[in-house]
Amino acid sequence: MPLVRIDIPAGTDAKRRKAISDCVHDAMVATMNVPAADRFQVITEHAPDALIIDPNYLDIARSKDAILIQVTLNEGRSVDLKKAFYKAVADGVEAAGMRREDVMIGLVEVKKENWSFGNGIAQYA
Amino acid sequence: MPLVRIDIPAGTDAKRRKAISDCVHDAMVATMNVPAADRFQVITEHAPDALIIDPNYLDIARSKDAILIQVTLNEGRSVDLKKAFYKAVADGVEAAGMRREDVMIGLVEVKKENWSFGNGIAQYA
Amino acid sequence: MPLVRIDIPAGTDAKRRKAISDCVHDAMVATMNVPAADRFQVITEHAPDALIIDPNYLDIARSKDAILIQVTLNEGRSVDLKKAFYKAVADGVEAAGMRREDVMIGLVEVKKENWSFGNGIAQYA
Repeated sequence: MPLVRIDIPAGTDAKRRKAISDCVHDAMVATMNVPAADRFQVITEHAPDALIIDPNYLDIARSKDAILIQVTLNEGRSVDLKKAFYKAVADGVEAAGMRREDVMIGLVEVKKENWSFGNGIAQYA
Repeated sequence: MPLVRIDIPAGTDAKRRKAISDCVHDAMVATMNVPAADRFQVITEHAPDALIIDPNYLDIARSKDAILIQVTLNEGRSVDLKKAFYKAVADGVEAAGMRREDVMIGLVEVKKENWSFGNGIAQYA
Repeated sequence: MPLVRIDIPAGTDAKRRKAISDCVHDAMVATMNVPAADRFQVITEHAPDALIIDPNYLDIARSKDAILIQVTLNEGRSVDLKKAFYKAVADGVEAAGMRREDVMIGLVEVKKENWSFGNGIAQYA
């Protein structure tokens, strides 16, 4: 169910792109009870003037490699679960050689009947 | 009002792209009382490693042609209306020669004052 | 915090693209109490058949230069604030030489704990 949009700088190499994709998914599985097979991601590259990420907002030093992750998922996760998810993503990207400052995440919550996974059926409703 | 984002595999031909676009819009008009002229869609193609769609989640067999449809629309539609919409999209794509297993849909609901259709005015508020 | 997706026609020149980006951000700062450094935008160009914007819905005459702006932001702004934001965007693009009819805006509201601005921390929670 989570539909994940990941926006990255143009020129991100395939290995790094894969690492980012895996980190986000693994963090959802590890912290938010998302099934391993429930993976739906859209990854888009953008030129520098098309991916505008403030380099210092909230005194976090973001580099030119900074990325945006927007996750649409079912409502109802606790604040603690959300915090665990953010930390797991940051830990994951750092383990993969990226900077934890460079990961911005936003969540959009929806009702469980707001998904159809195929066949025109609302599988969660 | 619905703002529809459709993410499709790179290389989808123009005819198929048009059929998908029409199916989604026609289904909204037919089932959710959306005016025929209320059509706002963003269709984006993605390379295989940028459009990640699990091939088997919930035992639905998705092909390499699978697509993601995300619709932002006004809140308040009933579960039955949402189900009718999902079915209408699947029926439509199938009638156009595609697989109903290949259509994942997600809805994001917002308040009616969350739209401006031009001129800087909240036309629904 | 606002995460802004701006979808524009392919071939929009760099000056116009910058003007649109600035107008949206400046309008958020001026009307919705968004900090000046809180700027996160994704701007994507689309071919004509990939950015479908009805040319007349609600009797607003939209041109081939029409754009879509989708802003994900914290919930709780009043209807009046939202109206002020829409007007400020339209005023801004008009001052930059564009048509106010050509700007469609949609807002998606989320909880304040739904953001991590880096380091794996929910800075607003």
